[in-house]
Amino acid sequence: VNEFSLINQYFTECGQSAYPIDIDIGDDAAVLSVPSSSQLVMTMDTLIENVHFPSSTSASDIAHKALAVNLSDLAAMGATPAWFLLSISLPEANEQWLKEFSQSLCHQAKKYAIKLIGGDTCQGALSITIQATGMIEQKPLLRSGAQMGDYIFVSGALGAAAMGLNIVQNKVSNIENKETYIHSLNCPTPRFDVSNLVKPYAHAMIDLSDGLLADLGHILKASQCGANVYLDRVPMPSALKQSNQYHFALSGGDDYELCFTVPIASLAEMNLILQENNVKVYEIGQITSAGLNVYHDGKGELVDLASINGYQHFG
Amino acid sequence: VNEFSLINQYFTECGQSAYPIDIDIGDDAAVLSVPSSSQLVMTMDTLIENVHFPSSTSASDIAHKALAVNLSDLAAMGATPAWFLLSISLPEANEQWLKEFSQSLCHQAKKYAIKLIGGDTCQGALSITIQATGMIEQKPLLRSGAQMGDYIFVSGALGAAAMGLNIVQNKVSNIENKETYIHSLNCPTPRFDVSNLVKPYAHAMIDLSDGLLADLGHILKASQCGANVYLDRVPMPSALKQSNQYHFALSGGDDYELCFTVPIASLAEMNLILQENNVKVYEIGQITSAGLNVYHDGKGELVDLASINGYQHFG
Repeated sequence: VNEFSLINQYFTECGQSAYPIDIDIGDDAAVLSVPSSSQLVMTMDTLIENVHFPSSTSASDIAHKALAVNLSDLAAMGATPAWFLLSISLPEANEQWLKEFSQSLCHQAKKYAIKLIGGDTCQGALSITIQATGMIEQKPLLRSGAQMGDYIFVSGALGAAAMGLNIVQNKVSNIENKETYIHSLNCPTPRFDVSNLVKPYAHAMIDLSDGLLADLGHILKASQCGANVYLDRVPMPSALKQSNQYHFALSGGDDYELCFTVPIASLAEMNLILQENNVKVYEIGQITSAGLNVYHDGKGELVDLASINGYQHFG
Repeated sequence: VNEFSLINQYFTECGQSAYPIDIDIGDDAAVLSVPSSSQLVMTMDTLIENVHFPSSTSASDIAHKALAVNLSDLAAMGATPAWFLLSISLPEANEQWLKEFSQSLCHQAKKYAIKLIGGDTCQGALSITIQATGMIEQKPLLRSGAQMGDYIFVSGALGAAAMGLNIVQNKVSNIENKETYIHSLNCPTPRFDVSNLVKPYAHAMIDLSDGLLADLGHILKASQCGANVYLDRVPMPSALKQSNQYHFALSGGDDYELCFTVPIASLAEMNLILQENNVKVYEIGQITSAGLNVYHDGKGELVDLASINGYQHFG
């Protein structure tokens, strides 16, 4: 395995960027220019075989997810993608695998207007680390901005990825549309469509990687407040709802939808913009002064959270 | 292993930076401001157990090297360190190992004025990925700037790290000062002292990670020129010179000294500045129009390069 030849062969001109690249892949480091009106947003996430994805996952899906989880962090900050670096370690230089991986990666990179500017490739256990950089022109969307009375929203159905993981792990068998759940697990979509529209209105935002309760908990801790969540409003695949398997939606991770809070004064304007752009979001509850309570519905019956475990990564 | 608790416990306030950090570790991503006069320089390198370091390497040395190899890339571009992200995968959450690793990492980070701003920790084969960002106010030092007639310099003795690797691999036994060579392998020094002083004068620069011939080769290819190198001028540990084991200096990697080229018109001024600052560099040859020739000395007898293999990483 020669890291230089690998990088040159599969990852040249991977993606595209709206932001200047002064020196691209090929020197000791990349050189970039940042518009004077922008702040940088930087994130880095690693996916490891048998930890973050089962070994049956295709090269194409691994690439999709490795980039998507980083892009999702940028979306959750209200940032626009700019550039990324990639480090892959592979047990062997499998050309077919690399071809499939790089095609999927570069397709996603182009779609989200982010360009590969460097990194390395080496021999080792299968593992992918991506560091992604984005730009913000306005204020970043933080976990710490939620205020009492804010309405809490999520950007889409929750629990499908966790069900997908259970299917892949052979823990669930008698369920229809298995492929749909596995697709949710392997190919999350960074929700820039939602982030871009709601960022002028949101007080706080996070992406749902560890599960709704855990990630909403991060907002509550950072914002020093509490929340009431109404289970009947939490969007989830109808098969999960019908079978009362709501723990997938509450504590299942890997959905990469956004969770955000919006003050009542901004609701009307935000809803109008969302409607105009045909983008749906789901109001699931409200920020309170303290505590995290999940009710079955508006009647006040509490869900027993003690029976719901936090999300654990595969393996 | 809970990645959040690990990060919080060992890596808060790790290092320091001269550049603004608007949102530090703890949100979905870090938010940074870039001075309008600066360009960004970004690099990312992974070290994997049994590939880039033997499993006998201490946590402290692994941390030192993981940061140093990235800092060395910044030095080779003429950049000033600013921030870094860290992804560690560990077979188990060994507290003693993490304590030793983080203490060494944060000590180095403070020394080189770079601050940890994010990343993640997960369970898996031992592997460390660091993405480092630096700033340049002037032009970057590229591989492509060498010009015919430039003098070629290296910043220090070459070959000690490769000898260290041979000692660790039990391929060499009858040699004195083993610990010194192993230290060169495990604890390279990013040569900002040299880079900072010579960057106004250098036409091209690279750091020596793959070995002198391979890395000088990168400069020659990028600059479309050749070089004559004189072996008797190449600095190396005296034990290697005395035993004619010059292949360690020519093709041994991991020294992380700098190699750079300077036009004759700038030599006097550069040498004066270096002398004033008590920093030594070593002139080893000259840029030519094409080809890479290594001579024993100024008399014209060629070294047989066919017998010298390119550097291969451990494992």
